[in-house]
Amino acid sequence: MEEFAVRPAPDDPRLTRAVAGIDQEGRPVETAVVMERPLTLFLNGREIVTMMTIGDHPDYLAVGYLLNQNMLLPGDRITAIDYDDPDDPEVVVVRTDRETDFEDKLKKKTLTSGCAQGTVFGDLMEKFDEVRLDPAAILKTSWLYALSRKINTVPSLYLAAGAIHGCVLCEEDRPLIYMEDVGRHNAIDKIAGYMHLNDVSPVGKVFYTTGRLTSEMVIKTVQMRIPILISRSGFTAWGVDLAQRAGLTLIGRAKGRRFVALAGTERIVFDSDGRDAAEESARSSRKASLPEEAM
Amino acid sequence: MEEFAVRPAPDDPRLTRAVAGIDQEGRPVETAVVMERPLTLFLNGREIVTMMTIGDHPDYLAVGYLLNQNMLLPGDRITAIDYDDPDDPEVVVVRTDRETDFEDKLKKKTLTSGCAQGTVFGDLMEKFDEVRLDPAAILKTSWLYALSRKINTVPSLYLAAGAIHGCVLCEEDRPLIYMEDVGRHNAIDKIAGYMHLNDVSPVGKVFYTTGRLTSEMVIKTVQMRIPILISRSGFTAWGVDLAQRAGLTLIGRAKGRRFVALAGTERIVFDSDGRDAAEESARSSRKASLPEEAM
Repeated sequence: MEEFAVRPAPDDPRLTRAVAGIDQEGRPVETAVVMERPLTLFLNGREIVTMMTIGDHPDYLAVGYLLNQNMLLPGDRITAIDYDDPDDPEVVVVRTDRETDFEDKLKKKTLTSGCAQGTVFGDLMEKFDEVRLDPAAILKTSWLYALSRKINTVPSLYLAAGAIHGCVLCEEDRPLIYMEDVGRHNAIDKIAGYMHLNDVSPVGKVFYTTGRLTSEMVIKTVQMRIPILISRSGFTAWGVDLAQRAGLTLIGRAKGRRFVALAGTERIVFDSDGRDAAEESARSSRKASLPEEAM
Repeated sequence: MEEFAVRPAPDDPRLTRAVAGIDQEGRPVETAVVMERPLTLFLNGREIVTMMTIGDHPDYLAVGYLLNQNMLLPGDRITAIDYDDPDDPEVVVVRTDRETDFEDKLKKKTLTSGCAQGTVFGDLMEKFDEVRLDPAAILKTSWLYALSRKINTVPSLYLAAGAIHGCVLCEEDRPLIYMEDVGRHNAIDKIAGYMHLNDVSPVGKVFYTTGRLTSEMVIKTVQMRIPILISRSGFTAWGVDLAQRAGLTLIGRAKGRRFVALAGTERIVFDSDGRDAAEESARSSRKASLPEEAM
């Protein structure tokens, strides 16, 4: 797969809007803000949830959400994905060839931290403990620095309008699938949906996110069978616990040449002295200064 | 009320944990990470939701959540708030003297963007349109600069461990109630609960958040009757729409002397040339460089 096979679309007029306001001097300014729209998901004619999303990939978001909630099992055959209006989808319907057991799951939703969409914990944790992540996978520090540099300089909604999260499926030093959304749970779900519908294997993959390393992000990454998770942001204690339990390589506060690894450190190969890391200058960096931030 | 009547507790051993890892050179490091624990909320013996929280104010969080979801009406009398273990609460029970109608609400949850806990939109919007925010409220730019400076330099979990959101109830140039949590929806709910249980009026108040100005944050601020909302972070289009509809003063990307106001700008009094704004240096700022960030 080539670099940035899927990349952000900051010039797509459906994803941002210009708004007039004033600045600190009272002068009129016009600024771009990201869209945030409700998208209601149905599975086989039953309403599951309404998500707030930028609305760019309703099919991937729908399938990824269902997969990451274990409402769609990997063996389920999707017979159709329909949505009403490709330019402004309000409803997306996923149809499968068998009845699913999601009704019971809906009864017990746990609202996860930070950015959360209600994860069904009991069930998730059962699957979580069954996953065996590839022990042979590695991450070279030269790859990590190259990934950060490429991801943070490619044109994105983040650079154009801010207030958005990014998730990127990577392989070695190449970012492959870069999705953005107002919620990072949507961005990761869109990647899960893309991988499922395009038959992309998790073998040899690395996951990069701009968001915090919470329990939810760790659980989803492990469910997707990806053995390495990198973030510019910080950690929660439970996210660290779960990564250690699953043997996930967990790297946070990755900015410039700095990073901290708190789980699965045996997969890291130190082949760079950090001179190839991008300087985090005012224009090229997402964030700066503090060793971590709350996202 | 005095400044920082409630303030973060970065030294509370229940709220952070030291974790061992390695840095970019492979050297051992020990770093603080914030706690993230499940807290299950009951209303009158019925299970409502499990929230992921740092767990510091289960009573305020519970009451604020119920208020902001309209599951508890302002006239409802709370007869008891019980939780199992003050040091590590797993369950919190709110008891009232009348039956509530939250069952219907639970049937239709909308998962909101960014950081979300499923907001019951139809019902919320009905109340939203009834709110009349104080047209006489003002915000002096000198207050805004003083608030940012005080909030971003007072000791906090953010400065100690990162990966956390802050919300602050303010009056003129004084931060009063500063709550932090892994989800900004929890931080704002804890303030709503504090205001309700301590009979704090929204008159003359200003709300400051580190998080993005999404539809959810705007709806909650309006529900709390606070006429002015300030953030270091950026906007979503729907957040701006709702603020304009409610006549809420909406200020984002407030860093150093810069800010952008996209709604309710008539409440802003430009009494400072910005020289009293804190420089956003590497150590004193939460974030830097870009005009906004995704939180």
